[in-house]
Amino acid sequence: MASEYVSVSNLRFLLFDVLASPQLNRLGLYQDYDQEAYELALDAAKDIGDQFLFPIYREMDKNKAYHQDGVVHVHPGLKAAIKAIAEGGWIAAPDDFEHGGQQMPLSLLNACIFIFYAANANAAAHAFLTQGAANLIRSFGDAGLQKTYIPPMYAGDWQGTMALTEPQAGSSLSDITTTAVLTTEGHYKLKGQKIYISGGDHSAVDNVVHLMLARIKGAPEGAKGISLFVVPKYRQENGKLVSNDVTTSGIFGKMGQKGYVAAQLMIGEKDDCQGYLVGAPHRGLPQMFQMMNEARIATGLMATGTASGAYYASLQYAKERPQGRHPSNKDTGQQQVLIIEHADVRRMLLFQKAIVEGSLGLLLQCCYYADLARATEDKEAREQAHLLLELLTPIAKSYPAEMGTLAVSTGMQVLGGAGYCDDFPLEQYYRDIRVNAIYEGTTGIHGLDLLGRKVMMADGKAATLFLREVQTTIKEAMKMPALDPFGRQLTAAAMGLHQTTMHLVELAMKEAPEIFLADATLYLEYFGIIAIGWQWLKQAIAAEKALAGAERETEAFYRSKLAAFQYFFEYELPKTEGIRQRLHSSNRVTLETLPEWIL
Amino acid sequence: MASEYVSVSNLRFLLFDVLASPQLNRLGLYQDYDQEAYELALDAAKDIGDQFLFPIYREMDKNKAYHQDGVVHVHPGLKAAIKAIAEGGWIAAPDDFEHGGQQMPLSLLNACIFIFYAANANAAAHAFLTQGAANLIRSFGDAGLQKTYIPPMYAGDWQGTMALTEPQAGSSLSDITTTAVLTTEGHYKLKGQKIYISGGDHSAVDNVVHLMLARIKGAPEGAKGISLFVVPKYRQENGKLVSNDVTTSGIFGKMGQKGYVAAQLMIGEKDDCQGYLVGAPHRGLPQMFQMMNEARIATGLMATGTASGAYYASLQYAKERPQGRHPSNKDTGQQQVLIIEHADVRRMLLFQKAIVEGSLGLLLQCCYYADLARATEDKEAREQAHLLLELLTPIAKSYPAEMGTLAVSTGMQVLGGAGYCDDFPLEQYYRDIRVNAIYEGTTGIHGLDLLGRKVMMADGKAATLFLREVQTTIKEAMKMPALDPFGRQLTAAAMGLHQTTMHLVELAMKEAPEIFLADATLYLEYFGIIAIGWQWLKQAIAAEKALAGAERETEAFYRSKLAAFQYFFEYELPKTEGIRQRLHSSNRVTLETLPEWIL
Repeated sequence: MASEYVSVSNLRFLLFDVLASPQLNRLGLYQDYDQEAYELALDAAKDIGDQFLFPIYREMDKNKAYHQDGVVHVHPGLKAAIKAIAEGGWIAAPDDFEHGGQQMPLSLLNACIFIFYAANANAAAHAFLTQGAANLIRSFGDAGLQKTYIPPMYAGDWQGTMALTEPQAGSSLSDITTTAVLTTEGHYKLKGQKIYISGGDHSAVDNVVHLMLARIKGAPEGAKGISLFVVPKYRQENGKLVSNDVTTSGIFGKMGQKGYVAAQLMIGEKDDCQGYLVGAPHRGLPQMFQMMNEARIATGLMATGTASGAYYASLQYAKERPQGRHPSNKDTGQQQVLIIEHADVRRMLLFQKAIVEGSLGLLLQCCYYADLARATEDKEAREQAHLLLELLTPIAKSYPAEMGTLAVSTGMQVLGGAGYCDDFPLEQYYRDIRVNAIYEGTTGIHGLDLLGRKVMMADGKAATLFLREVQTTIKEAMKMPALDPFGRQLTAAAMGLHQTTMHLVELAMKEAPEIFLADATLYLEYFGIIAIGWQWLKQAIAAEKALAGAERETEAFYRSKLAAFQYFFEYELPKTEGIRQRLHSSNRVTLETLPEWIL
Repeated sequence: MASEYVSVSNLRFLLFDVLASPQLNRLGLYQDYDQEAYELALDAAKDIGDQFLFPIYREMDKNKAYHQDGVVHVHPGLKAAIKAIAEGGWIAAPDDFEHGGQQMPLSLLNACIFIFYAANANAAAHAFLTQGAANLIRSFGDAGLQKTYIPPMYAGDWQGTMALTEPQAGSSLSDITTTAVLTTEGHYKLKGQKIYISGGDHSAVDNVVHLMLARIKGAPEGAKGISLFVVPKYRQENGKLVSNDVTTSGIFGKMGQKGYVAAQLMIGEKDDCQGYLVGAPHRGLPQMFQMMNEARIATGLMATGTASGAYYASLQYAKERPQGRHPSNKDTGQQQVLIIEHADVRRMLLFQKAIVEGSLGLLLQCCYYADLARATEDKEAREQAHLLLELLTPIAKSYPAEMGTLAVSTGMQVLGGAGYCDDFPLEQYYRDIRVNAIYEGTTGIHGLDLLGRKVMMADGKAATLFLREVQTTIKEAMKMPALDPFGRQLTAAAMGLHQTTMHLVELAMKEAPEIFLADATLYLEYFGIIAIGWQWLKQAIAAEKALAGAERETEAFYRSKLAAFQYFFEYELPKTEGIRQRLHSSNRVTLETLPEWIL
């Protein structure tokens, strides 16, 4: 097993040198969080990762979850892992002090969650799914719901879920058919079926609290008739937990994340499933978007964490495995060199590092915007931060999922045959990470979200703000001779994106939305490369500055940063050119090819 | 389970309309192979695929091979599958009539092998590994070896393998240390260890015949001291099979291809392992290259076959699964549309099709060159065909492996959550296909082979011949108004490749080979896109011609071809631009980043 899975130094660099996140303590909400508090939190998270999460990552795969005699059995270590996270205060962390939370800045919290995900995404996901569900109850639930449900969730005793998908309604949420009927006692009776419910039932907790979408009888059709309910596995009656008629009919056999259950639930088969309305009727979808948006950032973090684990595993292998010689030395009398000596292996490692650390930069940037949107008093700044967060969320979810999958595949390639075999963890990382491009909206859905909604919202204000952010970074870079050419390169690439956006917006005005949106997935990829390029330029600025005063023992860290930065600009940024060409083409092969012509 | 896995119509199109392969019957060797013979062969192969291979594809994964009490147990259906292939004459097929073969054109044979691989690569691989091993014995073995080993191999009773890799010698074959000592009886005694030996031991055959590389005691160091041996699991003594001291110490736990064993073998632990020299001493590596080159084409076919199975599985799903509505219609009162109606789903399907059918085109093109190299009397034509085959082999191996992996991933994405779960075959295709970028030399090794050896060999003659082939196709395309713009596009892209080649060759002359070869993997990718673009243009020419006279019921086939062709030129060909940019850059980040700076 690889000995490392995450770089805490890198998290410090991103939080302190790039984002200056501890300076958020100028805002009242976060006044307790100075740099020392950040350090303590990171160290505490790393301890939990080391002790409770990383050691069971592979075991949870080899001894996968299974459903037998009505019980979903999970790895015995999972209970301790969830409890350790809960007892560290991590589930409650984002909540206010008055509610028993830590009022922790989201950029810090998510840096710590990243550590957990890198150590073992499949265990950690349980706790942070519960966190999102509890947040949702806090935001929209009444005092009774908050009092009953949140404390055991924060304690890690009850699992939270998001129960949205049904067999006929996955991407198309407006088609859900689970019904809710108001009873004379004030609660609702629910009936229906939910599938792919992550953490939907398992033996490491005492109860499961589903945040479930359903349609109140007589509600309007479509998205405007969906309501949000708390639906527990066991409900409280006379101080006791009794069955609430939510039955697990099976768990899905997944390619990866085999320790993290996706359950199929039958709701109200005996007509005895109670649901408790959260917020107003028919407001379920907009309310649920709070949790979905958090879950999208979490998915990006999970993908990046998995890619981080894979990166360190392949890096270790590359530094230990001798094979081959340099092209200019074919003398087999001499020892073989370590494979990290080969340019192509370094290329693969730098690719992994560029994806992991670039993605992480963007994710923490999003969390930083969320902090501003939450804590700043300045209305304008708050709105801007909110718009940037909204705009970047589909990218922060999809880029790490798509590119992280390729990064892990590259990590496997570093190991060659060993990477394909289960003596090493790469094959598990490879299977595990792939689901992130499907979770919380497939990549295609996020392309539509980015181009069809986020770029268009507020008259394009978010996209304009984003370009301004990029330009600010470029301006700073161009003051530094070493970074000036890279600043120019990003300027050209960002202008290209801007022109493409204009071109597509024009199409949107002239043509049917089908045409404008046909290649939204490519647009998402394009935007993602620019956004990560921006993040790398920010990191390069910080690294250049730090390098000037670095001691010999810290020099390597910044050199490493600058190498991955250069890699990104040399190998990844040029990929925008091919995408740009396609997005400006008038050929409409995907639209004009009839279904019966796809054979 | 998907009902289809391959398009025989497409194989007919490639063999008849694109390659005109039956016209090879002008050459004496293939005179019996008219179009009817081709049709018969394809139908016979499809029958075996339908009856023996496809039905056990998923079972071989779910009931994976295991090693217990000294026996490697495989799925019981495997024996029948191998026997069906053998009894159909498929293992012996490439051999001459006088040796009991069918003298079958390699383009036809490999089209049929493609059917087998698409149906079930993990079962079929056993038979064609045996074929490659038998071919090698035929080419270099003496009469005694041929008489003893080939008949039971052709009968499917004995498994052939290629036993090259050792723990310390994978990519670096010149470092193998298995030793061979000549005995007074004329055979050698072998001692050593081999790993990752595909089909290296299993219960579906009576014996295993390893074509093994070893070093004769006192041989020169490195590649020039390696010899080739036949090393059976059981040797014949007094008409009986007795143990030959080849012990399976374990099988590797692979992410995929779980029904197709990779064995770890201990050779001569009891000092009683006999090996029989094949060909001359110290000529093992050049001889083995015959089998390795065949295996590289086979790996490309295996990857393409797996991607073909995945394509048809996702196509079927896309035509059956309703989800969502068109962007211009949000009326949830109306039924959901089939997902194939969505532009992004069509994009994903066309991507898969473009990769599968483009790769297959290149592979059969290579086999066609192999036919010419084998059967033509014209020395010049033979040499040219041989050079083209040599040049294109690393591409025909790597492009399908790399891009096929992405195509299967895209197929999984078409299914969304269902694709990640084992109710559908996509997750198995995803796990299975990934190994092809590792088998028979990783992609990085093939980049070095292409740029460092193949492009440079014979003073660059092969690359020149390739460009001539591409130009011939372009010239024909530009006579057709519908294809003229695509002809121009490929001209520009091919010229770009040519200029990049010149640039790199210049570097090779001025600088150390490390510099010239640093991005050989990118060069391989670049070359691959051009080669597949060429193949698609050839297919488009044939489709345009056929469409002119097509009946209504065959029209869809050619429309489908032209759609995938356009997809490739719109979405894939532009990717060369980013690669070209990088290959012309003077930034040497992968070379100049010290190992200790990769953190």
